[in-house]
Amino acid sequence: MKNEKAMEEAQSLVDRTSICMLGSIDNVGYPNIRAMIKMENEGLHTIWFSTNTSSRKISQLRSNQKTCVYFVDLEKWIGLMLIGTIEILQDTESRKHLWQDGFEKYYPAGVNDPDYSVLRFTARSGKYYHALTHATFEL
Amino acid sequence: MKNEKAMEEAQSLVDRTSICMLGSIDNVGYPNIRAMIKMENEGLHTIWFSTNTSSRKISQLRSNQKTCVYFVDLEKWIGLMLIGTIEILQDTESRKHLWQDGFEKYYPAGVNDPDYSVLRFTARSGKYYHALTHATFEL
Repeated sequence: MKNEKAMEEAQSLVDRTSICMLGSIDNVGYPNIRAMIKMENEGLHTIWFSTNTSSRKISQLRSNQKTCVYFVDLEKWIGLMLIGTIEILQDTESRKHLWQDGFEKYYPAGVNDPDYSVLRFTARSGKYYHALTHATFEL
Repeated sequence: MKNEKAMEEAQSLVDRTSICMLGSIDNVGYPNIRAMIKMENEGLHTIWFSTNTSSRKISQLRSNQKTCVYFVDLEKWIGLMLIGTIEILQDTESRKHLWQDGFEKYYPAGVNDPDYSVLRFTARSGKYYHALTHATFEL
């Protein structure tokens, strides 16, 4: 499979998918996976999430920024793994950037609630799977 | 959420789900995720997969057996992460154990095809998520 076509199909997958899996490494060196809502994406390169500052994944991500994000369309046998690093952002601009109506339910103190954190994942490479074919590309 | 109830619901999720995500750590220390067909499970403790001996994940798993397996039901907001280790098995008994009609398509030399490998994942702990609640348990 050609990289150009793979990246085009990968972009379509990311754009139409709102739930993905975030992979991290825990404090004793095991991979961890959890489903996350993709809040926003800029191409394939940057994926934005929000989470609770008090969550276990935040403590993992403080120790180890190496992460992957996986998108899947099980019906079409399509998968995309993006490999990269994640940053924990708590500046007002980033908080406001992702803030949505209804977030008060989770973060009662509003946009500056200390338990509200923004995660920005930056991909350095991708691997796209479609049925039995795959393609790997740098980002 | 009580552990007993979490484990019961987790068991139901694993039993009814045929595709899960396998998390591993690659040769430069990044977490990797890919969708895998669950071939068989024994409770929550043991999950069986098959794969190509030549695949990149086999080379990763030879270097680092620390893995996780993630099951998800997006409609019901349910997720289960099992943490443990994986073994690569190539003995005849394990190969025969998982062999299914149609595998000749992928492994033309049959049950002893050198490109056919069996993976046995053994969980040591689990984390079960249902909406905003979760429970952690040893296995």
